[in-house]
Amino acid sequence: MVIHSSSVRLDSFTLESGATLTAVDVAYQTYGVLNGARSNAILILHAFSGDAHAAGISEETGKPGWWDNMIGPGKAFNTDLYYVICTNVLGGCRGTTGPSSLDPATGKPYAMSFPVITIRDMVRLQKRVTDSFGIERLLAAAGGSMGGMQALEWAVSFPQGVAAAIPIATTARHTAQQIAFNEVGRQAVLADPDWNNGDYYGGTPPARGLAVARMVGHITYMSDESMREKFGRKLRSREKKGYDFSGDFEVENYLRYRGSEFVNRFDANSYLYITKAMDLFDLSNGSLTLASVFEKVTARFLVISFTSDWLYPSYQSQEIVRALRGRNCDVAYCELPSNHGHDAFLVDVAEQSDLVRGFLASTFSRETR
Amino acid sequence: MVIHSSSVRLDSFTLESGATLTAVDVAYQTYGVLNGARSNAILILHAFSGDAHAAGISEETGKPGWWDNMIGPGKAFNTDLYYVICTNVLGGCRGTTGPSSLDPATGKPYAMSFPVITIRDMVRLQKRVTDSFGIERLLAAAGGSMGGMQALEWAVSFPQGVAAAIPIATTARHTAQQIAFNEVGRQAVLADPDWNNGDYYGGTPPARGLAVARMVGHITYMSDESMREKFGRKLRSREKKGYDFSGDFEVENYLRYRGSEFVNRFDANSYLYITKAMDLFDLSNGSLTLASVFEKVTARFLVISFTSDWLYPSYQSQEIVRALRGRNCDVAYCELPSNHGHDAFLVDVAEQSDLVRGFLASTFSRETR
Repeated sequence: MVIHSSSVRLDSFTLESGATLTAVDVAYQTYGVLNGARSNAILILHAFSGDAHAAGISEETGKPGWWDNMIGPGKAFNTDLYYVICTNVLGGCRGTTGPSSLDPATGKPYAMSFPVITIRDMVRLQKRVTDSFGIERLLAAAGGSMGGMQALEWAVSFPQGVAAAIPIATTARHTAQQIAFNEVGRQAVLADPDWNNGDYYGGTPPARGLAVARMVGHITYMSDESMREKFGRKLRSREKKGYDFSGDFEVENYLRYRGSEFVNRFDANSYLYITKAMDLFDLSNGSLTLASVFEKVTARFLVISFTSDWLYPSYQSQEIVRALRGRNCDVAYCELPSNHGHDAFLVDVAEQSDLVRGFLASTFSRETR
Repeated sequence: MVIHSSSVRLDSFTLESGATLTAVDVAYQTYGVLNGARSNAILILHAFSGDAHAAGISEETGKPGWWDNMIGPGKAFNTDLYYVICTNVLGGCRGTTGPSSLDPATGKPYAMSFPVITIRDMVRLQKRVTDSFGIERLLAAAGGSMGGMQALEWAVSFPQGVAAAIPIATTARHTAQQIAFNEVGRQAVLADPDWNNGDYYGGTPPARGLAVARMVGHITYMSDESMREKFGRKLRSREKKGYDFSGDFEVENYLRYRGSEFVNRFDANSYLYITKAMDLFDLSNGSLTLASVFEKVTARFLVISFTSDWLYPSYQSQEIVRALRGRNCDVAYCELPSNHGHDAFLVDVAEQSDLVRGFLASTFSRETR
């Protein structure tokens, strides 16, 4: 299934902060067919470094989508039954307007003049897109990590706009530790002289700083166990004599590779703005109880977390579940066993698929009866 | 108790790698009085960024030592009873020879011509120092984190040289995740153009890179719980309008402060060499079983870990304990409850003090009966 991306342009879009962007592009892909009642649409929400290419083989890169193991004919998000949409988030660098886009007012990239955005802004923009498709109510909004934050925000911001939410490996508010890891990544970018206050377009991007930021990220996406299984203390080369700072251990070289590879596909300013949006995310708007924000929610929920995910630990999903149950919402929760840490929602999909498949089937049957 | 540091010079010191350093200085402090039998000496081993100033008030800085809550009259390491020694490690930058020291052969700082060192090198150098004090056998070698690695290495390298080892919040070998965190810190230093291949002495040190490295470290020293309790989502200023990248949250500013403060007291090349020594640390020398390396050990052990320490989790202490028990060694183990993460051994010292006090008393009574 070869897939190409499309994009839609909105004349203007006003953010939570009051700032207005003009000529906003949103890149998207779709899989499957929208039914006549427009009742089978599922919005897939990507994580921090993801993009609209969630499934199939990209016409552009020849690579499978980031959730290709979950989306397709017969898969959890069964494209024989559902119409699946994935958009690149606001602030991104993969086709949707972000800091690397040209500001129509100046003809130059926004860079750091791009306004600070929120998860709610991302979701409100997605709603504009699905509205433009004539879809008034989504069957489901689903995603892991930052995608899970968006799924939660969909259910809260558009109580009639979505029948079900599937937040996976996520949280209702970023904690101090999560903010801290993001801040370290941002500081690594800001410390790179090539960042140049964000004005590096057309010049040398802050590749070293962005690579360090990505290395921190990768450690938090894996688990102690999965790193031990994958790398242990394996040396890069048994033939090398002695040790130095060029990368003695395989794990060092893996991180360096992932860091340098990231630089080729991601914009450093998008790194800043999107991590900031995550850090600002607090579904409860600073209130002490989550339950109050779920007051108007009508969506059903499937909440999933993973045992070895220490970046978005299970207790954070359980807080969401307790708050929903406190409001008598329809919520199913599963903590799945996995050694893969936070990455589990991307790689350990067997049980996750069964849960999602069943949950979508029952939601669809409720919606259409 | 005002304390001043002393130092001792060794004409030459040959490393595990075969490299030889000449005119090696070792900075040290002592507290209490060595008894006539020279049987009451305890060596305190510092963690990554520590130094010889473990207790009392520094004549130089006016500040208390890093383990002042554990060392002193009536404290766990009771200086009314014991003679306590602390040295700055080889490779350090607080009085002991390291990459920032002058190479006698060139008259210039070693910088990156300093040889790669190991935890065993640090311990063998300490042994030379205690030998020079006329102390053949230590009552105990004790420390947390990297200090715990040295305590383990003492018991293994000098089976007759130490009556007891107290490794706290540590591991017998650095894991892939621990190596990964250190490698990120090193990459942050190496990415800073001011690092200049290590030749920054007399010029501008790689302050931005070292600060980022330290920020990563601080996150790993705390716990999710302690960060939530200390910072939560508290904003730096309620008066500021909107959000930006100057540090919205208190936790961001705390990390930036700790990062920038570190630059004033630590050498970036020492950061590289000492983290590398930790990463190379494998008490079992690559063998699959730890028990084999404990074959000749005669020391008693008190092993301590903390519930919320995710950098050196309890299972790693338990591996040490199992291996020692498998060799029928005398070992006491306690996992202490604490929310303070890896920092617990520095700050949560009430129960730790009781354990150490009792263990030292019984060791001293065995040694002297």
